[in-house]
Amino acid sequence: MSGGPVAIVGVGLMGGSLGLALSDGPREVVGVDPDPEAVRVALAVGAIDRAAGSLEEAAGRADAVVLAAPVPALASLARRALAASGDDCVVTDLGSAKSALLGALDARERERFIGGHPVCGAERTGVAFARSDLFRGATWFLTPGAEARPDLFERLHGLVGSVGAHAVAIDARVHDRLMALVSHLPHVLAGALVNQAAATAPGGREALRSSGPSFADLTRVAGSNPPMWADILVANREAVLEALRAYAGRLAEVEAALEHADRGWLLGFAEEAAAARGRLTDLGAAGPARPARVVVAVPNRPGVISEIATALGHAHINIEDLRLRPGPPDGLGELELTVDGREAAEAVRLVGERGYRAREA
Amino acid sequence: MSGGPVAIVGVGLMGGSLGLALSDGPREVVGVDPDPEAVRVALAVGAIDRAAGSLEEAAGRADAVVLAAPVPALASLARRALAASGDDCVVTDLGSAKSALLGALDARERERFIGGHPVCGAERTGVAFARSDLFRGATWFLTPGAEARPDLFERLHGLVGSVGAHAVAIDARVHDRLMALVSHLPHVLAGALVNQAAATAPGGREALRSSGPSFADLTRVAGSNPPMWADILVANREAVLEALRAYAGRLAEVEAALEHADRGWLLGFAEEAAAARGRLTDLGAAGPARPARVVVAVPNRPGVISEIATALGHAHINIEDLRLRPGPPDGLGELELTVDGREAAEAVRLVGERGYRAREA
Repeated sequence: MSGGPVAIVGVGLMGGSLGLALSDGPREVVGVDPDPEAVRVALAVGAIDRAAGSLEEAAGRADAVVLAAPVPALASLARRALAASGDDCVVTDLGSAKSALLGALDARERERFIGGHPVCGAERTGVAFARSDLFRGATWFLTPGAEARPDLFERLHGLVGSVGAHAVAIDARVHDRLMALVSHLPHVLAGALVNQAAATAPGGREALRSSGPSFADLTRVAGSNPPMWADILVANREAVLEALRAYAGRLAEVEAALEHADRGWLLGFAEEAAAARGRLTDLGAAGPARPARVVVAVPNRPGVISEIATALGHAHINIEDLRLRPGPPDGLGELELTVDGREAAEAVRLVGERGYRAREA
Repeated sequence: MSGGPVAIVGVGLMGGSLGLALSDGPREVVGVDPDPEAVRVALAVGAIDRAAGSLEEAAGRADAVVLAAPVPALASLARRALAASGDDCVVTDLGSAKSALLGALDARERERFIGGHPVCGAERTGVAFARSDLFRGATWFLTPGAEARPDLFERLHGLVGSVGAHAVAIDARVHDRLMALVSHLPHVLAGALVNQAAATAPGGREALRSSGPSFADLTRVAGSNPPMWADILVANREAVLEALRAYAGRLAEVEAALEHADRGWLLGFAEEAAAARGRLTDLGAAGPARPARVVVAVPNRPGVISEIATALGHAHINIEDLRLRPGPPDGLGELELTVDGREAAEAVRLVGERGYRAREA
């Protein structure tokens, strides 16, 4: 990674935490925010080294610009950051919905803009609640388009790794459908449940006051940041609608089973859920990784690293580290990937399937 | 409370935990279970003092019979326990659905049968996972019918308090509608969500493996005891259907808002949820209680205590202790209730509203 500043546009909880996480590193962190109080606190807690007066000023000399702003503002901010920054600067964001944003940019803009989404958060918002370890161990999705420049993807991958997160390349539409299912739909479900309980008082007894710890668990996510969630739901509405309609169909099946007092069906439903839930628990209990290196011969053209990284990301093969050694302009360079040794053979196979020569090193 | 044995029918997680919780007390605990291994473990861990060969043998000399068996078996077990026990024995259960069970018994049977439901549980089943503190601090609903004998209700209330739970009287139908909303529907929602995530792999990437800690929280309840949950859903299917249909209506509203990209509506939805969620958190943070006594003059007839206790239960006024001093056969006795001092005036008012003379003592 080069040594120019990192510009953070929006120093709230996420932007501020990123600044804190980068503050031990060698690179200057420049921050900008429309709220002067946020800038003051960010400087005071050491989340940024320097405040810029505008996005353009912050982006001017930066090697990387990170847009940590509300989702509806991202497309316009991305365009401004690309226009204001040099040809060697990568621009990324932290938004929870990716397809619409990438679609709002043109092919040229997607050479230097690579979408990002760290999967983490906190119950409180604002830079005062920023923590340097917010991203530690988190999955940080990257959604490089086919036009993404290999060197800039490499730099962004390194930036994500430097704050302790796991960079996982993923197709933007796949990302949005996944998040709709495992995050956005759950927020909708929790919200509808807590609203229904709040509105119901059978026999004069408030339902909400009769709820126990499992109801509290189930609805915990319903309490956070309404404006942000309204933005996310609108930005990812197509994928959320798809997930919601499929879900409504599942509830209709439960309804039919209840109408017919069909215990056998309900038992199958609960057993299927228990099995899936068990798999989820098992997945969280993976053993320690033994790192291995996979070396791939790659032509010097945009989209190649994105393609390889995304193929591995979709196969849940984690790229711990990624280094690019460019070759001659019309020859082959080397892409060196560090992965879990148990997955190295599968990584070689997947990359080979896409027509690239790969070997375990 | 008198000194006869407590009979526990079914020594699994719940029955075994009740036995352990009672094992420090003065009363003998007799257990019975169709599974000889459960009986052996229950004796070994001290959950029961003595094993009986049959329900009839266990109930024969008991002062209280607690049915800790699967929901579909309860009506038949209740009838057998009532037939085998003496006229001074109260029979209760621990089932999660109450109306159908009470409806299956006749008025005469409901004099000595008083439904119960401790709101607690654990991820594992079986007496090997029983714990003496399972009920500590838990709400333990009691659903006395109008026929319930005052002295037996008093005894059951005391039994519940002796294991550290809070006895809360509630109308059986109100109980079922509440549990449908705050427990049974949430189980259905979590199950449908985890099943949908398990069945979906957008772009070849498994959704389940991309889920984070909040998805895990939201679906935690989906993993537990499928046969028990199938039984509960069938037993309480009318109330669950009502809650599920209302919920489906709420999701349809979200769907319409997403279709129209109606950010204003979605913001209102999320704000309503955040406010309700905030109230839920506040409700959990009540200050320490200053006990007060409320004395009510009560005629010596069935249903009076049930009526008073249920009225307070519906108003969320917790009766910490309840003592009955019977008067002459055709005169007035005294019911002494211990409640939180901040709620004593309201308790006096509510009881007065029902035509009984009450005062703070």
